[in-house]
Amino acid sequence: MNRYEHLAQVLGERIEQGLYPAGQRLPSVRTLSTEHGVSVSTVQQAYRSLEDRYLVEARPKSGYFVSTRKHLAALPAVCRTPQRPVDISQWDLVMGQITSRVIPGMVALGGGTPDLTLTSLRPLNRAMARVAQRTDNSMLYYDIIEGSKELRDQIARLMIDSGSHIDAENLVITTGCHEALSIAIRSVCEVGDIVAVDSPSFHGAMQTLKGFGMKALEIPTDPITGISIEALELALEQWPIKAIQLTPTCNNPLGYNMPDDRKKALLRLAQCYDIAIIEDDVYGDLAYQYPRPATIYSFDDDGRVLLCSSFSKTVAPGLRVGWIAPGRYRDRAIHMKYISTGNTATQPQLAMVDFIEEGHYQAHLRRVRNQYQQNLCVMTNWVMQYFPQGVRVSRPQGGFLLWIELDEKIDTQRLNRILEPEKIQIAVGSIFSASGKYRNCMRINYARLDENIDQQAIKRVGERVHQLMENG
Amino acid sequence: MNRYEHLAQVLGERIEQGLYPAGQRLPSVRTLSTEHGVSVSTVQQAYRSLEDRYLVEARPKSGYFVSTRKHLAALPAVCRTPQRPVDISQWDLVMGQITSRVIPGMVALGGGTPDLTLTSLRPLNRAMARVAQRTDNSMLYYDIIEGSKELRDQIARLMIDSGSHIDAENLVITTGCHEALSIAIRSVCEVGDIVAVDSPSFHGAMQTLKGFGMKALEIPTDPITGISIEALELALEQWPIKAIQLTPTCNNPLGYNMPDDRKKALLRLAQCYDIAIIEDDVYGDLAYQYPRPATIYSFDDDGRVLLCSSFSKTVAPGLRVGWIAPGRYRDRAIHMKYISTGNTATQPQLAMVDFIEEGHYQAHLRRVRNQYQQNLCVMTNWVMQYFPQGVRVSRPQGGFLLWIELDEKIDTQRLNRILEPEKIQIAVGSIFSASGKYRNCMRINYARLDENIDQQAIKRVGERVHQLMENG
Repeated sequence: MNRYEHLAQVLGERIEQGLYPAGQRLPSVRTLSTEHGVSVSTVQQAYRSLEDRYLVEARPKSGYFVSTRKHLAALPAVCRTPQRPVDISQWDLVMGQITSRVIPGMVALGGGTPDLTLTSLRPLNRAMARVAQRTDNSMLYYDIIEGSKELRDQIARLMIDSGSHIDAENLVITTGCHEALSIAIRSVCEVGDIVAVDSPSFHGAMQTLKGFGMKALEIPTDPITGISIEALELALEQWPIKAIQLTPTCNNPLGYNMPDDRKKALLRLAQCYDIAIIEDDVYGDLAYQYPRPATIYSFDDDGRVLLCSSFSKTVAPGLRVGWIAPGRYRDRAIHMKYISTGNTATQPQLAMVDFIEEGHYQAHLRRVRNQYQQNLCVMTNWVMQYFPQGVRVSRPQGGFLLWIELDEKIDTQRLNRILEPEKIQIAVGSIFSASGKYRNCMRINYARLDENIDQQAIKRVGERVHQLMENG
Repeated sequence: MNRYEHLAQVLGERIEQGLYPAGQRLPSVRTLSTEHGVSVSTVQQAYRSLEDRYLVEARPKSGYFVSTRKHLAALPAVCRTPQRPVDISQWDLVMGQITSRVIPGMVALGGGTPDLTLTSLRPLNRAMARVAQRTDNSMLYYDIIEGSKELRDQIARLMIDSGSHIDAENLVITTGCHEALSIAIRSVCEVGDIVAVDSPSFHGAMQTLKGFGMKALEIPTDPITGISIEALELALEQWPIKAIQLTPTCNNPLGYNMPDDRKKALLRLAQCYDIAIIEDDVYGDLAYQYPRPATIYSFDDDGRVLLCSSFSKTVAPGLRVGWIAPGRYRDRAIHMKYISTGNTATQPQLAMVDFIEEGHYQAHLRRVRNQYQQNLCVMTNWVMQYFPQGVRVSRPQGGFLLWIELDEKIDTQRLNRILEPEKIQIAVGSIFSASGKYRNCMRINYARLDENIDQQAIKRVGERVHQLMENG
């Protein structure tokens, strides 16, 4: 633990123990710097990390204050996972999830769609229309297998924000992050191989492992710091693990950012056991802190990290424009790209080039990051208000997804069935586990909140949870 | 062999033996009907099949005449294939093929791109632009996993032309035919399985088999009637074949249409050995005859045919809009779709709905079918004119690809290397074989012919072939 983390821990404990009550002004940066014998920037960093955990609020020109949120919900527990690789189940549940999100009138709290109604997306419509009318008809042709060079140049530039200095040659455009993950998995694994995953983990990646005949080994994961390095090391000693697949930044579903030192420790472990890391960074640009956290990929110096991402969460999923930075596995990844779709649709790629080049991507990011961070507070408050006491909720540091852990008695599949006639859908927890754990958990989306519709929906979900608690 | 095929064979032999010389008027339909004791429509069908083979020309109100083309090139030989399953090689060559087609200034005779410069495609640009500007922003959202319902309805309607009466529920939209083939293969096969393929065969499908760890068993294939049913039956007796993968209509690269009775015989064989058929129909709507030939899928009554297709050859490859009709394998195919790309890009799907609905698809098809058929004559004449005597060429009945077989001494990989500095590229024959056969063959594209550029290019290729012949 480094200095700022230590200081943040000390201050955090004092706040949680009530030594500094809600709303109270906290010691100034200079005071703490003197008191603890650390630099001003270390104190600032500590305060920022407490802000990320909603313990502290910064007020312009006044300093730092203890958060006035009535009480902070408890964090989800770190789950005991099966200590062996398992065949992945839950496909039927995932399919149910996919199917019901498109039922007309459904309040799809369980979906992974960002807010697509913002005016900051308008320039994209114009870019799409302009590309469609280009006289060279470029949108009708196959692009090269790696995807548009112009787009890869732009993505390489964007990746500087996450600490990577990458050449466009080392990127391959894909049909969304789904195809990137699919390519990554097939580039490093074969049928029967074991892949270690964070837990809870993105169901799409796990279903991909399932579809290609691999087994998942779930590793206990902390809701604030991410996958347990210690548990992972034990697993690596015990099993012939081929790769680690995880979402370390703006995790889906928990929302944490793994601290840099833990990302580096993970990488060292992968080097030590000579295995690959498949890093899903699809929500990474939606981190509430600026600059956004570094990727594991950015620390990698021997090409073992395959970074997978897309514009599906930051811009729009319907574009199906993603990418993979496959490191040393480039040749294999190109072959896998060829046999999965041949090429990526041309027009959305060309439109994204314009959208980024003209500065609209960064402007849109600023807009949604603010909105999502604000909505998080609103949604957390609704959950605290309407759900039974003892509910545990995640503390996302980016993205637009909240993880909720209910009493062990509650089965969220049953809850979802009860909610169906009321046209409300949540994502049931068990799809986020290879072994069907998290039956008492759910994931909800707070990208776009309508005070009427969504507040009513959360209230209704809360009431149904109360009823289930009472009826046992 | 049925009555019209028998009659066509008798007449064809007489023409090829010179009993009816070029330009001579052939017996009238009524005369032949009386002479052979068959119906008038049987004679007409026989003449039409001879027209398809360029042996006969119909002249309005005058009757049928022996084709006046100076001499008809010999057909490519039926190749002896290795009589065992092989691991597929040739990826490096395929990659070379993909890479060089996009070099600026390259005359890419080897590519598979249709003519994208026609005015009959203009309404597509307008449809793309309109979709981009829809106020509901529908193009930004995920579509459902099966793809746009409206588009599947349109495709189901189009499929009536190939003899199928299919419900939209039994179609899944894919990112081009590549993804459809990839899904089909993974829906019916596992690592190590043997798949029988036509030979020569589409390299994309074979590379997919390779990428997923399957073996290919090449079946001898006739350049007019397609895959040998007899050879296939022998192979089925000998090997545990899991599926047959082939392009029976407007075959790539040979251009033949397998006759209906052979398609049915193939299906019976698959039923008898209880295996799946993966039918690539991507060029099917480009058949020169109207109505277009029926698919094997249309004869299938127990859901064992997986039909794969797309708009890449009929409209534009950059759209990446394809589909699969997976028959009884629907559930598995949906899972495979989910893990390969999740969804297909939304906007090109919506634009295609408009393009078809407004009648532009059929209009464009009529336009390109005529052009491709005319270009075939032009290209065949160029090849006959500029290539050494003894060259063998295919007699495509649809599409825009010509298969050329040269003297056994010629290695087309070497030819391609010689042509590279002259910025001419052909598709080398060996990528169309799992075992690297057809080294003396090549495939060229006649979709769009420029009298200057393409005639010069073919002349240049012919000269180089002459040189290679002389230098041994």
